[in-house]
Amino acid sequence: MDFLDEPFPDVGTYEDFHTIDWLREKSRDTDRHRKITSKSKESIWELIKSLLDAWSGWVVMLLIGLLSGTLAGVIDLAVDWMTDLKEGVCLSAFWYSHEQCCWTSNETTFDDRDKCPQWQKWAELMTGHAEGAGAYVLNYFLYILWALLFSFLAVSLVRVFAPYACGSGIPEIKTILSGFIIRGYLGKWTLLIKTVTLVLAVSSGLSLGKEGPLVHVACCCGNLFCSLFSKYSKNEGKRREVLSAAAAAGVSVAFGAPIGGVLFSLEEVSYYFPLKTLWRSFFAALVAAFTLRSINPFGNSRLVLFYVEYHTPWYMAELVPFILLGVFGGLWGTLFIRLGKYPVLEVIAVTGITAVLAYPNPYTRRSTSELISELFNDCGALESSQLCDYINNPNMSRPVDDIPDRPAGPGVYNALWQLALALVFKIVITIFTFGMKIPSGLFIPSMAVGAIAGRIVGIAVEQMAYHHHDWIIFKNWCRPGADCVTPGLYAMVGAAACLGGVTRMTVSLVVIMFELTGGLEYIVPLMAAAVTSKWVADAFGKEGIYESHIQLNGYPYLDVRDEFTHRTLATDVMRPRRSEPPLAVLTQDTTTVEDVETLIKDTDYNGFPVVVSRESERLIGFVQRRDLTLAIKNARQKQDGVVSSSVVYFTEDAPQLPASNPQPLKLRRILNLSPFTVTDHTPMETVVDIFRKLGLRQCLVTRSGRLLGIITKKDVLRHMAQMMNQDPESIMFN
Amino acid sequence: MDFLDEPFPDVGTYEDFHTIDWLREKSRDTDRHRKITSKSKESIWELIKSLLDAWSGWVVMLLIGLLSGTLAGVIDLAVDWMTDLKEGVCLSAFWYSHEQCCWTSNETTFDDRDKCPQWQKWAELMTGHAEGAGAYVLNYFLYILWALLFSFLAVSLVRVFAPYACGSGIPEIKTILSGFIIRGYLGKWTLLIKTVTLVLAVSSGLSLGKEGPLVHVACCCGNLFCSLFSKYSKNEGKRREVLSAAAAAGVSVAFGAPIGGVLFSLEEVSYYFPLKTLWRSFFAALVAAFTLRSINPFGNSRLVLFYVEYHTPWYMAELVPFILLGVFGGLWGTLFIRLGKYPVLEVIAVTGITAVLAYPNPYTRRSTSELISELFNDCGALESSQLCDYINNPNMSRPVDDIPDRPAGPGVYNALWQLALALVFKIVITIFTFGMKIPSGLFIPSMAVGAIAGRIVGIAVEQMAYHHHDWIIFKNWCRPGADCVTPGLYAMVGAAACLGGVTRMTVSLVVIMFELTGGLEYIVPLMAAAVTSKWVADAFGKEGIYESHIQLNGYPYLDVRDEFTHRTLATDVMRPRRSEPPLAVLTQDTTTVEDVETLIKDTDYNGFPVVVSRESERLIGFVQRRDLTLAIKNARQKQDGVVSSSVVYFTEDAPQLPASNPQPLKLRRILNLSPFTVTDHTPMETVVDIFRKLGLRQCLVTRSGRLLGIITKKDVLRHMAQMMNQDPESIMFN
Repeated sequence: MDFLDEPFPDVGTYEDFHTIDWLREKSRDTDRHRKITSKSKESIWELIKSLLDAWSGWVVMLLIGLLSGTLAGVIDLAVDWMTDLKEGVCLSAFWYSHEQCCWTSNETTFDDRDKCPQWQKWAELMTGHAEGAGAYVLNYFLYILWALLFSFLAVSLVRVFAPYACGSGIPEIKTILSGFIIRGYLGKWTLLIKTVTLVLAVSSGLSLGKEGPLVHVACCCGNLFCSLFSKYSKNEGKRREVLSAAAAAGVSVAFGAPIGGVLFSLEEVSYYFPLKTLWRSFFAALVAAFTLRSINPFGNSRLVLFYVEYHTPWYMAELVPFILLGVFGGLWGTLFIRLGKYPVLEVIAVTGITAVLAYPNPYTRRSTSELISELFNDCGALESSQLCDYINNPNMSRPVDDIPDRPAGPGVYNALWQLALALVFKIVITIFTFGMKIPSGLFIPSMAVGAIAGRIVGIAVEQMAYHHHDWIIFKNWCRPGADCVTPGLYAMVGAAACLGGVTRMTVSLVVIMFELTGGLEYIVPLMAAAVTSKWVADAFGKEGIYESHIQLNGYPYLDVRDEFTHRTLATDVMRPRRSEPPLAVLTQDTTTVEDVETLIKDTDYNGFPVVVSRESERLIGFVQRRDLTLAIKNARQKQDGVVSSSVVYFTEDAPQLPASNPQPLKLRRILNLSPFTVTDHTPMETVVDIFRKLGLRQCLVTRSGRLLGIITKKDVLRHMAQMMNQDPESIMFN
Repeated sequence: MDFLDEPFPDVGTYEDFHTIDWLREKSRDTDRHRKITSKSKESIWELIKSLLDAWSGWVVMLLIGLLSGTLAGVIDLAVDWMTDLKEGVCLSAFWYSHEQCCWTSNETTFDDRDKCPQWQKWAELMTGHAEGAGAYVLNYFLYILWALLFSFLAVSLVRVFAPYACGSGIPEIKTILSGFIIRGYLGKWTLLIKTVTLVLAVSSGLSLGKEGPLVHVACCCGNLFCSLFSKYSKNEGKRREVLSAAAAAGVSVAFGAPIGGVLFSLEEVSYYFPLKTLWRSFFAALVAAFTLRSINPFGNSRLVLFYVEYHTPWYMAELVPFILLGVFGGLWGTLFIRLGKYPVLEVIAVTGITAVLAYPNPYTRRSTSELISELFNDCGALESSQLCDYINNPNMSRPVDDIPDRPAGPGVYNALWQLALALVFKIVITIFTFGMKIPSGLFIPSMAVGAIAGRIVGIAVEQMAYHHHDWIIFKNWCRPGADCVTPGLYAMVGAAACLGGVTRMTVSLVVIMFELTGGLEYIVPLMAAAVTSKWVADAFGKEGIYESHIQLNGYPYLDVRDEFTHRTLATDVMRPRRSEPPLAVLTQDTTTVEDVETLIKDTDYNGFPVVVSRESERLIGFVQRRDLTLAIKNARQKQDGVVSSSVVYFTEDAPQLPASNPQPLKLRRILNLSPFTVTDHTPMETVVDIFRKLGLRQCLVTRSGRLLGIITKKDVLRHMAQMMNQDPESIMFN
């Protein structure tokens, strides 16, 4: 009779594209924990098992750190090699990148590190001529061909094997972390294909970065290791704690910024972030960063992607250009979010156009991260870059760190033109690139746009300060012969501003940038730019790129940051509305199996309230549709005497029935006896708060103890959309 | 008739030593915000007011940063001066500290910076003799006298003017941030007296630090500036957002670690920390740090208290001593928490004993932060400290950064003995000092204990490695002539371990330490020590020093970290219990004014549920005792016809009463129509979760729509205490 007191398969799981109930998951985990603790007193073996269980969280973190660090290292190395493969090949060992090839060569002097006989451009290898128009055209042609090949491979692999591998993945991860189920999004295939196609996509020279996809890759690792421990694989809530930490590890390896990674996960990605997760995320992020460092893909044993060291302080007056860069960043963010929503173009076409346009300009030909690295750089005395072609003071005897401002040479002016062209190109092509069906991140391209703009502004300010020492604004802080302006700092501020405009990150952005420079000195410029860019971008629309994509896909994401300030009550939002048929409820001991089956067939609700009787409308519990279906199916198969006219009861004891009636079916086990209720007078702002903080799926509405209706997460989201004059039908999932 | 639809004074406020209702505060703020937004469309003036309102949060942050940075700078300067005043005086300007005095002197060479004619010890000034036993005794005597004077002043000021100024203040701030009201704890007097007495207490040479009290001072600043804006002064929830940020600013100036400060506030102090607060805290922490830097109290334009630069990496094998230091830190934390709970001794006596014992030992005579600074330091070639008295290799031509390990000279061995004595002294005296009735922080003394232990271990390992290159453990990483061991790093790891053992901080601890060294390099040793010390200390008792003090004081603090895993239900915790009289309720339209007054007189409940009728037990709302008292008092005074036999009604329309009845009193305005309810079957872990996340004061319990009982925060805390085998009566407040 009490057959259903035994668990049956799949009870308490969720369907694809549904939202989990955080409270239920939490209480299931407490149950599990209680069981293990009480068992652990029984035997040594159980005690060991309970200790293993307690430690499994740390083990998972360690594994995530190791694997995501390794994958990031491998991706970095592969991208380096394949980016260089578009231009030439290393004769001594074809698997060496340009830098590695020349690094092992003995003949190199310091000055032309990147020219060595072992490294040959394609034209030289094929025709023997390194110079000349013919060689240039051949190289150009092969560059485009390689790019097309890479992007073709990438797009085909994604399309055939793992459609979920495309894009940056962060919007979906945000949604998943908020409690949504997307099966396969963090699966093994996605992990494999995303890693491979990420390398191909970045190497193809498209204007995209690997940072966002690395977060996706790290989350896939997290999900993979979750399946090793039933604690995490069987509990969707606990699984999300691991995924939050994995996201931190992803950013940590993307930028070599563990603290920034944790804050990114906390600020931008995560939904439920208890203190325990903070500490574990930090551990995972550190392990990942150190794994990456021991692989040492950049060959400088540095953790960070763009290491910079500046020698000059900044001055108050410089806040004006910094804030202007912030405004630029905000505008860029707005433009990108508005136009980046509708990607229509074909990947191959965009790759072709990118390659054709990028090759002639040295600043767009190289990989974007190299470009940013050069733009961030402060010109030392030994720098051979075109950007550092200043006219040196002949009196300066030896290279020092603190070089005074100098007039720009022809190389700098030349570079300025090329940078201006690169800026326009990057802006246009990045907008078209993001959202294509290949793995693509937006951090690096956005930073590149900002860095180019920043460097241009920086050089302009520097030359103004040099040539016009007597202007009032420069008089106070820039004596002749002093080093006042660091154009590299402007590039960094611009990069932060553009990244902030697109993502609306704040603290984590500043901390990531701080970890890049390692000095508190430059936090104020970065903050000024980040705040300005956020305000400017917010003025045009509150949503960052991730929220905008979540909305575009109709995911049910209840943003923690949206303040709900409208004066509506629970009664205005609950279903059924006045014109609608009454709420579909079950009674505690008068509904038959057939009634239940009809109800399930006729409606698509995710669950049904159970009341004492239809007249009293006194609520006793809530039952999930999925559990109900499974329980009845199970009972019909395995339990004798259960027929369509059997009464279903949710009470402790079977109801008093005439002897002629078939055996009743007890379903108390699947009844949630503590459904969440609010009164009909509860303000919607409180309801929204409760949904957010407790992670509810639905909430029942009562008035003086009578059940009136139900509010689901979808109802809340639709109501919020309506209040913001958006289309409520855009919220598609529950 | 609808007199009470107008607000009357004090409605919705809280009494002293009561807990706020977060949901109500939040919903009041939303109301206020809605009003301002709708008004802002009426006129330009209202628009400006609404903009000012929107910006007030940032203005408050700016002001907090400026004031707390300034206060921290002033405190640093004053402590420096007064600490030195115990030993001597500057002849050129008596308000100069020893360092400032000699800094302005022209005659100083690099080697004896701290010996200059302008600075005279008391004996020299009074007798003309700088050396000799007589001078020593006189100096000793005056040192003790000054110390006694300072501590006497401190203790008297605290006792007379602001008893709340004693201790570190962090336990109380944690409690206040969790929603408790302690009037005057963050008042102007407390601010003033705490600042002054903090300087006196630290200067008196007692084994206490200024870091905890600085957090209290910053929070007082925050509270002060809250009163400028009605948005914050009139809403206890919003006020707590500001206080969270102020706590971050406090740690930021205490250590010069803005990011660490924000994480400290997030991890250790705050209760409700929305993302908006994260960003604002960061701003406040930065402003505070930069204000402090521009005051430049340490004279080195460094932000941080202990700036260190190490040149050697650490090796895997060193993790063993690091973990041992972690164990030591955990044991220290346990000892301190167990014994530090019962401070009985007199401040003056402890000061006297401290001064008598501290003077002869150079490591205890100087200020604790100077001691830590020296212990953290890596011995450069120019270091004149006794700790750096190594036997130099005569072949070494010029000072370099990377000095190989050297044999220790007699100075080092001498220092080791003194350090060992200092360690014992610090351990004993710190336990007696904390908790005395003067401002006292535990960060610096705890760090000192760890740093001394760490330095001793570090020197031991260094000398072992030098003398036994051939031992297997050293063979792999320590060639002869190499710089393998940095004793300063051991000191830092020890300091982190001891601080972690006492406070159980994790991420914020590592980040603060990271901000001190500025290098990711040493995060792993710090983490290893912090984790070990936390685990060891947790094994002896889950509570850190702050939680332990909160419990000692019986404050109603619902810790976010305590996991509730017992299998109890709401019905087991709710009042009334089975043996108790029924729940005190009001009916919606049949209770008279006299009934209400009797109920208020006879019970001490904080509020009463309102039901349709005693028979149906259908809940319609909840009314606060304070509001009820105020409303009836108000009505009796100002509203004609309200007498003892008047019926009180909570419905929209007045009840149908015989004409002979006196005029009824409408109280719907003070009725909370959306009280929080759970069913009697709700597991207590869910109830605890709801109380924590939503910040409730009380929650009503129903079964099938009938009101059964009530659970207050106090009930929850008492139940939790009972489940942990603690005395439930220790929870004293509601």
